[in-house]
Amino acid sequence: MRKQSSGASKKVGLAPGTVIHVGDTNISKPKITLISYDKDTFEEKVVESIEDCFLCKDPKTVSWINVDGVHQVDIIEKIGTQFGLHPLVMEDIVHTEQRPKMEDFESYIYLVIKMLQFDDDTSVVTSEQVSIILGPGFVLSFQEIEGDTFDHVRGRIRNSKGRIRSAGASYLAYALMDSIVDNYFVVLEKIGEFLEVLEEDMIENPTPAILQDIHMIKKEIIYLRRSVWPLREVINNLDRSESPLVEKVTVVFLKDLYDHTIRIIETAETYRDITSGIMDVYLSSVSNKMNEVMKTLTIIATIFIPLTFIAGVYGMNFEHMPELDWEWGYLAAWTIMVMISVSMLIYFRRKRWL
Amino acid sequence: MRKQSSGASKKVGLAPGTVIHVGDTNISKPKITLISYDKDTFEEKVVESIEDCFLCKDPKTVSWINVDGVHQVDIIEKIGTQFGLHPLVMEDIVHTEQRPKMEDFESYIYLVIKMLQFDDDTSVVTSEQVSIILGPGFVLSFQEIEGDTFDHVRGRIRNSKGRIRSAGASYLAYALMDSIVDNYFVVLEKIGEFLEVLEEDMIENPTPAILQDIHMIKKEIIYLRRSVWPLREVINNLDRSESPLVEKVTVVFLKDLYDHTIRIIETAETYRDITSGIMDVYLSSVSNKMNEVMKTLTIIATIFIPLTFIAGVYGMNFEHMPELDWEWGYLAAWTIMVMISVSMLIYFRRKRWL
Amino acid sequence: MRKQSSGASKKVGLAPGTVIHVGDTNISKPKITLISYDKDTFEEKVVESIEDCFLCKDPKTVSWINVDGVHQVDIIEKIGTQFGLHPLVMEDIVHTEQRPKMEDFESYIYLVIKMLQFDDDTSVVTSEQVSIILGPGFVLSFQEIEGDTFDHVRGRIRNSKGRIRSAGASYLAYALMDSIVDNYFVVLEKIGEFLEVLEEDMIENPTPAILQDIHMIKKEIIYLRRSVWPLREVINNLDRSESPLVEKVTVVFLKDLYDHTIRIIETAETYRDITSGIMDVYLSSVSNKMNEVMKTLTIIATIFIPLTFIAGVYGMNFEHMPELDWEWGYLAAWTIMVMISVSMLIYFRRKRWL
Amino acid sequence: MRKQSSGASKKVGLAPGTVIHVGDTNISKPKITLISYDKDTFEEKVVESIEDCFLCKDPKTVSWINVDGVHQVDIIEKIGTQFGLHPLVMEDIVHTEQRPKMEDFESYIYLVIKMLQFDDDTSVVTSEQVSIILGPGFVLSFQEIEGDTFDHVRGRIRNSKGRIRSAGASYLAYALMDSIVDNYFVVLEKIGEFLEVLEEDMIENPTPAILQDIHMIKKEIIYLRRSVWPLREVINNLDRSESPLVEKVTVVFLKDLYDHTIRIIETAETYRDITSGIMDVYLSSVSNKMNEVMKTLTIIATIFIPLTFIAGVYGMNFEHMPELDWEWGYLAAWTIMVMISVSMLIYFRRKRWL
Amino acid sequence: MRKQSSGASKKVGLAPGTVIHVGDTNISKPKITLISYDKDTFEEKVVESIEDCFLCKDPKTVSWINVDGVHQVDIIEKIGTQFGLHPLVMEDIVHTEQRPKMEDFESYIYLVIKMLQFDDDTSVVTSEQVSIILGPGFVLSFQEIEGDTFDHVRGRIRNSKGRIRSAGASYLAYALMDSIVDNYFVVLEKIGEFLEVLEEDMIENPTPAILQDIHMIKKEIIYLRRSVWPLREVINNLDRSESPLVEKVTVVFLKDLYDHTIRIIETAETYRDITSGIMDVYLSSVSNKMNEVMKTLTIIATIFIPLTFIAGVYGMNFEHMPELDWEWGYLAAWTIMVMISVSMLIYFRRKRWL
Repeated sequence: MRKQSSGASKKVGLAPGTVIHVGDTNISKPKITLISYDKDTFEEKVVESIEDCFLCKDPKTVSWINVDGVHQVDIIEKIGTQFGLHPLVMEDIVHTEQRPKMEDFESYIYLVIKMLQFDDDTSVVTSEQVSIILGPGFVLSFQEIEGDTFDHVRGRIRNSKGRIRSAGASYLAYALMDSIVDNYFVVLEKIGEFLEVLEEDMIENPTPAILQDIHMIKKEIIYLRRSVWPLREVINNLDRSESPLVEKVTVVFLKDLYDHTIRIIETAETYRDITSGIMDVYLSSVSNKMNEVMKTLTIIATIFIPLTFIAGVYGMNFEHMPELDWEWGYLAAWTIMVMISVSMLIYFRRKRWL
Repeated sequence: MRKQSSGASKKVGLAPGTVIHVGDTNISKPKITLISYDKDTFEEKVVESIEDCFLCKDPKTVSWINVDGVHQVDIIEKIGTQFGLHPLVMEDIVHTEQRPKMEDFESYIYLVIKMLQFDDDTSVVTSEQVSIILGPGFVLSFQEIEGDTFDHVRGRIRNSKGRIRSAGASYLAYALMDSIVDNYFVVLEKIGEFLEVLEEDMIENPTPAILQDIHMIKKEIIYLRRSVWPLREVINNLDRSESPLVEKVTVVFLKDLYDHTIRIIETAETYRDITSGIMDVYLSSVSNKMNEVMKTLTIIATIFIPLTFIAGVYGMNFEHMPELDWEWGYLAAWTIMVMISVSMLIYFRRKRWL
Repeated sequence: MRKQSSGASKKVGLAPGTVIHVGDTNISKPKITLISYDKDTFEEKVVESIEDCFLCKDPKTVSWINVDGVHQVDIIEKIGTQFGLHPLVMEDIVHTEQRPKMEDFESYIYLVIKMLQFDDDTSVVTSEQVSIILGPGFVLSFQEIEGDTFDHVRGRIRNSKGRIRSAGASYLAYALMDSIVDNYFVVLEKIGEFLEVLEEDMIENPTPAILQDIHMIKKEIIYLRRSVWPLREVINNLDRSESPLVEKVTVVFLKDLYDHTIRIIETAETYRDITSGIMDVYLSSVSNKMNEVMKTLTIIATIFIPLTFIAGVYGMNFEHMPELDWEWGYLAAWTIMVMISVSMLIYFRRKRWL
Repeated sequence: MRKQSSGASKKVGLAPGTVIHVGDTNISKPKITLISYDKDTFEEKVVESIEDCFLCKDPKTVSWINVDGVHQVDIIEKIGTQFGLHPLVMEDIVHTEQRPKMEDFESYIYLVIKMLQFDDDTSVVTSEQVSIILGPGFVLSFQEIEGDTFDHVRGRIRNSKGRIRSAGASYLAYALMDSIVDNYFVVLEKIGEFLEVLEEDMIENPTPAILQDIHMIKKEIIYLRRSVWPLREVINNLDRSESPLVEKVTVVFLKDLYDHTIRIIETAETYRDITSGIMDVYLSSVSNKMNEVMKTLTIIATIFIPLTFIAGVYGMNFEHMPELDWEWGYLAAWTIMVMISVSMLIYFRRKRWL
Repeated sequence: MRKQSSGASKKVGLAPGTVIHVGDTNISKPKITLISYDKDTFEEKVVESIEDCFLCKDPKTVSWINVDGVHQVDIIEKIGTQFGLHPLVMEDIVHTEQRPKMEDFESYIYLVIKMLQFDDDTSVVTSEQVSIILGPGFVLSFQEIEGDTFDHVRGRIRNSKGRIRSAGASYLAYALMDSIVDNYFVVLEKIGEFLEVLEEDMIENPTPAILQDIHMIKKEIIYLRRSVWPLREVINNLDRSESPLVEKVTVVFLKDLYDHTIRIIETAETYRDITSGIMDVYLSSVSNKMNEVMKTLTIIATIFIPLTFIAGVYGMNFEHMPELDWEWGYLAAWTIMVMISVSMLIYFRRKRWL
């Protein structure tokens, strides 16, 4: 079973706002990349020491600092202090078991989103916490592990595709969220394919192993839905917040993103319903198959039992059994036995038991 | 299984607002028809090149441009640019997996609606995305494939039936939506008939195939409900939006349409409940039938087993078995066996097992 | 199965507001009665031609025109035109598949209510649409078939019982709704009695036929609930509408009526829960009974099988079987067989299988 | 089954506001008691004729008229007229099938509450309607039968315990409601004990009778919840009504009472969930027990069937059966049979079927 | 079963506001500790007589009086009177069956929270009521039994860790609530581990005992959820109350705490769903296993029954049975029997019954 709150007990008794990493430690050294751009200029570098990226803050460009790996608490704290983050925000960045949320601290907006991955081999949905901080002219993003989800965004910035270079920081934050949400569709698609395979298996060859699969995929869907449900509210709040950090041009894109999350939730719910349906059909398929077996076997037994009785009767050793001495006795016995079995077969067929 | 989001992965990593067709490519060349009318005049033509229809814009008439086929992205882009549509709207028109929605862009209103079709042969509900854009004096409608749903509306315009010629563009948009919603009732009726057949089958001849049918129709109803549920909100929003594009005379018709969608949703929910009911009754019918079979067979076996035992006893080869030498021994054995079976039958009948 | 939207396809493609009758055609000629009264005067007549009733409109009296039968569309249209009804209202009156609703057209209020009847023979709830139009000083009511539901109201007006003669048109409309809602209690009571019978049957003699009955009554309860649920909103809206047509003295009575509808909904929901409960208990009763049968039969078989084996052993024809030659061999065999069966019986009883 | 609306049909067709008793007629003569008190004075008497109690109205004291028995309609009407009650209120007092409600008539507040009793013998929850009218300086309470629920309140007034003598009429009304709600906890406790017994029975000795008990207690819990649910709203409305009749000092007590009703509802819901759980566990206990029986019996049969076959083989009468003539043939047959049965037992044990 | 309202009947008939202890009496003598601190000073003592702690009230410091044990009613009353608490608050402190709530009495805020403990041995969640009173410059906390939950808070105050010494009384109240809520995660984690063990057991060795475990853990989860659900509202109300007692700096911490409660509720709901899933899988595992057993046994029986019949036939004692005299008769009989059994095995294998 997925460990839902495995790290919680680590934190019991600590003062709130204590920045302690809760979660799996993923890579040895956090990788920090800095991208800063405006309409005309573009700069990208991997930052060795965090202090480097504070130098390059330029009010006219948009700076995007992406941190892969949140287990080195001191780095987070340095960045946090530099950008004036609230201690609770720093705590939440490293404590990677938050639920998706949006918090408006006036001078910046803090967003927590879950990035999902569907592992094809184990059919398990793994989740990673992404923290996005949207400030005036800068976006900070924190991932647990190095991944390729944001590569598309990087590519669009590099190649100056679409409106990303000309739009402001809030559009960049939107683009990051959009690429995360797009990933959800991929996960949904894979779950969908898994369900299709399950449905076909169920019809062709319903084995008990399907039950475990249904139970597992159901848990994944519950988990997925639980990750997306608060996201809906997050995007809605961001959309409706009249924060000056969210530029007007971004709002219409947020509405679009909101529609996407609704679609994901609805699909997840449809999948849940379909899973229940598969479960029901599986159970009665198994029951039908079993019934079929039992019925056939029982019918065979039922036909032979009276015959065996008759054979038993003429195996009795009474002195005076007139049938035994008849010339055609043996043939008569066979005739009776065949007649009994044929009439039983006819009766069963009429009753539609065969 | 219906592919819920089959095209989503195609789009991962693209800039939002990129107009790329997601969906099945249906016909070779989109068909564009232009109808423009006012109280007195009426003009209808099939447009060969899209530029043609931009010439004929006349502020006093209502222009309706209907595009069948949204896979030729350049056509959509040309129209979109001409009418000043937002890139996201153009994206949504060609990306035919939107959920029904209504977006007010002040200078025009964008509506996405699902048009449903019930395929009698496969009993599958197919869906097509219809995009309607209501602007001042014009209505654009985009269908995925050429269909006859809007023929009634065309007919009413041609023949100047009802109020359509004298009412404005918003009434035309309403008329289009109304014809789509009317179609939902047809789909519902067919589902209803399917359920009736299923119910009768279930009573007369409950075979395992019914299970698949129930599972399938349940999925169709879930799908239908999912298409109509947001439509309710769409029409409500259109009704309550105080957009000047929605003329006052249209509002009362929208309220009526709203009632229709509510009725569709309620009927769909009733059907879902009835489907569950059929499932329950089917399952216990099967179980009853099976029980009946097993009981009868087991009773037959149970009656013969003691008889076979008695026959076996007198088939034993002991030297000293006094019964075997009795003159009436054989008859006595038969008598006992008949008595046992009769008394068992009486007992079973008293216990109401027969 | 109840045909939920049987007439919908008849209407596909017609212009909204087209007054076409959808529903069963019930009686050959609509019967129109006119009652007009004030505190002191009272007049009642059956109207032959509709024009008659337009003459007698008197601002000081309350006029109640009741039409039994809505299939003669021209009559409805004449009345509609005379009283200035909106085409959609006229359409809804004759299209008898509306859901209950209340529409305030300022100069009049349009109410749609379902009148229910429980058919004792078939145990089916039949429904009839009643349209009530409340205008200044007049009430129009349209029933599908001639019925006696409003007779009590007529009687109270005739005999000047209660406050009806002194109160205005809105009180009359309330009285009509009240008599319809009172009827719901009668239907509920009959369903309740049906459930009581079902419950007793289930305990005394659970046959598969009960399953069909449960399925059917469940469908009726779903249908009833679906009719009453929107009624709640209708009365609430009427109560809260600040329309001058609803006199203040009527409001307190509407609140009372609202309580009644809530009570009906709650009872319907309780009945649904009880029906589910009966279903559950039925299913496990059947299962228990079946188990009982199978257990007894299997025990009988199980006891005789080892005995038959022993008889079989001593029926073997080996040359050298010392037991066969013993003097007390036969008795010993019987003793062993009796001992085996007795010890099995004791064992089964100890295990509480008997 | 509890008759949910047994008296409704009695009322069909009567004018609203007609004061006719609906419910069981409980005691021969209503008992009317009058208590009037202020901080210093206290007077209590049983009133023979209702007119008596109208004399003693004193603006500075609080008067509490309690009527046990509402079947003598004329008494209710006299009191109603004296205190200026609305006809619908009088109707609701005697028509004892109201749902709990609160109605503010400005000059007085009308409250309907259900008083519940758990009958230990039949395990049925019986209900009685209590009507409370809170006016300026007086409280009227109407019970269906004479009971002891209000004795505690009487005692506190008599002995001048707590704040009751110094607080006003609204506090008295609160105290009455509080004593009714306190009684709900008693009912809940008894249901809880019943469930505990049921749970133990289920584990120790699951008999089909438990099923009936579960069905019954479930119905009682549904009924209880249905009585308390509207009460929540009643108290909330009373609390929030800014009626001058509800003194400020009483409001904090009403909030406390509100918390109690929430607690009752939650406990009822927990009980419902637990009942479902017991049902589930019962069903699978029964199924487990049955499976156990069938498995054991089938294993016995399965072991003996091959043995019987072998015995049958050597009971055949072929001329040339070499085994029959062997000296150790009989012993060999036994050896084979023992080996077969032992190996089957080992196999079954390995498969964990034993 | 957990006794849900065991003490309620003790209180029936008492005047509201009567301070009587309802709950288990836990320790012999309540232990009162007083901690008072500001940025620079810190004082901690165990108070012998309650009067002691009233002396040390100093407007500039924060005083925290913690009472372990609420069964000595006179102590609660003395403290209550000293701090001007409402009688209902004193009643609720000692009546330890409140649901979590927040009441704003302007001069102080009263909070009731449930502290949960998971007993590893019995797998039962035990609950303790903690009352917190937040006044200007002081916090009172009442626990039922002496526990170590607040030790972390005490430690932080002593060691001047975090912001607790510099923040005000509302931060202390928050810190107490936070330590209680942190404990919930521990309980959830233990339930999660229990579920994991259950899930593994279910797959490896599904015994009927699991059923009892599922039923029990389900009840615990229902109970947990019921304790946390109102807590959500409590913290939300505290957060939104514009009481001057809640300092602005505390509000952001309360929002964080609110998120935690939401997370607890969601996890509890996920656990409930998973529990249902385990139940379903368990039931069909058992059913599968049983079917497997029955099928195998029935197949064995079915194969031998025709063979036994054949053996029976040639055990008959007819005079004229030509097969008996054939030289190869016996061998032929065996051949037929082997052929029958082999062909049945092939048939069963083809039908996938084996």
